[in-house]
Amino acid sequence: MMDYDTNGIFGKNHSLMITNVMVDGRLVEIVIDEKGMISSLGENAGKEWKGDEDFLIDGNGALALPGLINTHTHAAMSLLRGYADDMILQDWLAQKIWPLEAHLTQKDVYWGTKLACLEMIRSGTTAFNDMYFMMDQAAAAVNEAGIRAVLSYGFIDLSSVEKREAECKATEKLAADIKAMNNPRIKFAVGPHSPYTVSPEGLKWCAEFAQAQKCGIHIHLSETEKEVTDCVAAHGKRPAAHVDACGLLTPQTVAAHCCWLDDAECQLLGKRSVSVSHNPASNMKLATNRAMPYQALTVAGANPCLGTDGCSSNNNLDMFEEMKIAALLQKFFWNNPTILPAPEALAMATENGAKALGLATGRLAAGTPADIILVSKRDACNVPLHNAASNLVYACNGCSVETTICNGRVLMLDRGIPDEANIVNGAAEAAFGLVERAKTA
Amino acid sequence: MMDYDTNGIFGKNHSLMITNVMVDGRLVEIVIDEKGMISSLGENAGKEWKGDEDFLIDGNGALALPGLINTHTHAAMSLLRGYADDMILQDWLAQKIWPLEAHLTQKDVYWGTKLACLEMIRSGTTAFNDMYFMMDQAAAAVNEAGIRAVLSYGFIDLSSVEKREAECKATEKLAADIKAMNNPRIKFAVGPHSPYTVSPEGLKWCAEFAQAQKCGIHIHLSETEKEVTDCVAAHGKRPAAHVDACGLLTPQTVAAHCCWLDDAECQLLGKRSVSVSHNPASNMKLATNRAMPYQALTVAGANPCLGTDGCSSNNNLDMFEEMKIAALLQKFFWNNPTILPAPEALAMATENGAKALGLATGRLAAGTPADIILVSKRDACNVPLHNAASNLVYACNGCSVETTICNGRVLMLDRGIPDEANIVNGAAEAAFGLVERAKTA
Repeated sequence: MMDYDTNGIFGKNHSLMITNVMVDGRLVEIVIDEKGMISSLGENAGKEWKGDEDFLIDGNGALALPGLINTHTHAAMSLLRGYADDMILQDWLAQKIWPLEAHLTQKDVYWGTKLACLEMIRSGTTAFNDMYFMMDQAAAAVNEAGIRAVLSYGFIDLSSVEKREAECKATEKLAADIKAMNNPRIKFAVGPHSPYTVSPEGLKWCAEFAQAQKCGIHIHLSETEKEVTDCVAAHGKRPAAHVDACGLLTPQTVAAHCCWLDDAECQLLGKRSVSVSHNPASNMKLATNRAMPYQALTVAGANPCLGTDGCSSNNNLDMFEEMKIAALLQKFFWNNPTILPAPEALAMATENGAKALGLATGRLAAGTPADIILVSKRDACNVPLHNAASNLVYACNGCSVETTICNGRVLMLDRGIPDEANIVNGAAEAAFGLVERAKTA
Repeated sequence: MMDYDTNGIFGKNHSLMITNVMVDGRLVEIVIDEKGMISSLGENAGKEWKGDEDFLIDGNGALALPGLINTHTHAAMSLLRGYADDMILQDWLAQKIWPLEAHLTQKDVYWGTKLACLEMIRSGTTAFNDMYFMMDQAAAAVNEAGIRAVLSYGFIDLSSVEKREAECKATEKLAADIKAMNNPRIKFAVGPHSPYTVSPEGLKWCAEFAQAQKCGIHIHLSETEKEVTDCVAAHGKRPAAHVDACGLLTPQTVAAHCCWLDDAECQLLGKRSVSVSHNPASNMKLATNRAMPYQALTVAGANPCLGTDGCSSNNNLDMFEEMKIAALLQKFFWNNPTILPAPEALAMATENGAKALGLATGRLAAGTPADIILVSKRDACNVPLHNAASNLVYACNGCSVETTICNGRVLMLDRGIPDEANIVNGAAEAAFGLVERAKTA
């Protein structure tokens, strides 16, 4: 491929032209304007382009796709990758994850999110739905990284009135901080952690605040069987009905996991047009023992999308891998090899994800924001190319992504990311320091 | 990293020194002699090395591992990657796979195996256990590729006496052809396809031939529930007992899949010291509805190892991905997050695989053949490095392999493989031609 002026093409918006890429089986050109929008896409779309030659990207026959969208993660937990695995959920949380998280600093959340964004850019993800704490640091990292994020503060009141007041304030502060950033790539969402960590009063406050802010809602729902049993015992309702009674099921809601929904709950989520984020790798690793009812939810009208969960329970952020594991798990658990065929898995990671997060991305068309990834057709795992959707879901992984563009800005070109070594070093140092502090505490 | 004399280092054996690599948490040097053996490994192992500087590989802190071992695949099926997916097993075979396979030529098997070897080298696999047909072409491809293989002709008699005689001859011919190659990297095994495609007489002949040849046995066993039901109906025994009665369960046997073993069968396979090749991605994709009983088999004394199956039901040959999917599936299906922890998944793909194929590889130590891969510690998915085994199994994939060495020969260096473009082109053309012939037939 040509030798790019790397100082020129990275870092800010330019008018770009991409030639020689495949979109839906056609060899096309894509023109991106200075505002980061796709201005034209088609066989001779670049005919009139008058841009600087330095900003012409030869796709070399690559598959062009919309940037993938990760609808459930905890980005800063990348610093905990591999810190503890192969344990019973409760032991893992109580003995390993929570004690380490207690030592997390603002700087750690910044570096953890930087590392997560780097991994996402490398593996073709251009937008993610995040829930964690110290989210101003996450926002700073996303701002620098150049990708999109919907950021929520994980609201946990454990039925304490004092804690609830503090969580409301933290949520309000994040909403105000993100508004003040005025960055079109960064949105705020309300993040009631789950029906088992937030009181009904807290859940209701979150629903009302989301309505007032006209923003999204991000919640964990029915990941484990125990949550369902406990919710019925405490509230006389299964989790979906319980959070619905608190006003949290809306077309702007992303409910993560949803392994243990019964048929009535699938109907309810469909009726409310909720987006359901399937997290198959995390669910398998933590042995949730049931797979999200993809077919029942889809038939009911819910919007199925895909997420990796955090790096401590996956342990990566590769949405290509997640598409494959989703397609495999649905077939295996529901005992039918025709469930979740490759094109539907791809839709979960693209257009359905965009719908879940209220983004205009998720497809490639003139007039949409230029969130574009180029996937190599020359990698051995992508040869032969009988069926692009099949190869993308079942054969490739995120390493086949050569170029990543978000909002018209080139973030990775021919597998090169300008600031990579600094981010890797900063994150590795932060993780090392975190573990050292926990040891000596 | 340093600029290697690529013409010099590839293609034949040299005395090599690898510096600055991690083995079991220690920074070491590895010296390889001209015969392809590890002559020393340790902190100052290379102190006395007097080789040519061109043959000094700076590992740059990478993790050095034994080359991974894929114990069940059909390499040439890489040409069918993505040709048909998301179908019921019987339709998929009868409507898609078999009609296309009917048009396979010798050249196709050669190019398919070349492509498979390329993908394996790139993703850190240095030995595989193959079953297919036109295996002289597979042998030619493996000979050129530089990795190890145990090759078996898929013996299928469908209870026809004439067909059985032809299959015996084909098996004998492959044994003789491989002996004549006299290549220490290529071994022959007997390949009775399965108890449902081979008559008891055919199975017994295979057992006797394997004993006479002192070679391995490669068989499919209890992949689906239907096979078990049919076997009981036809032979009054479950599949493991049936093939055992024919003499096929030995310490040199690799039984692939083994999803539907009951407890008595696990005991039997343990007692016979059989190697059991777990193929989780293929089993999930084809919805076998049960996972190999890893714990029961291990307790019983069987040797659990790992395979990808062919590219038409996976659809890649990445053993890193397979380790992850194995660890996830075992946890999920058996409802216990402590089953198959990362170090055991790694053992399945290395030392257990070597034991299964009767190889002296699978671990890094002086006096063993130099089958070595170097895995980047700098890739984002491998940062931080709290626990190497965890990252290798759960966070990495085969793209983190930077360098692959088999039998002391450098096959990939810093992600560069000399002949890659030719192989990709040849395989893509062969696959295209195959589909065209099937269309016009």
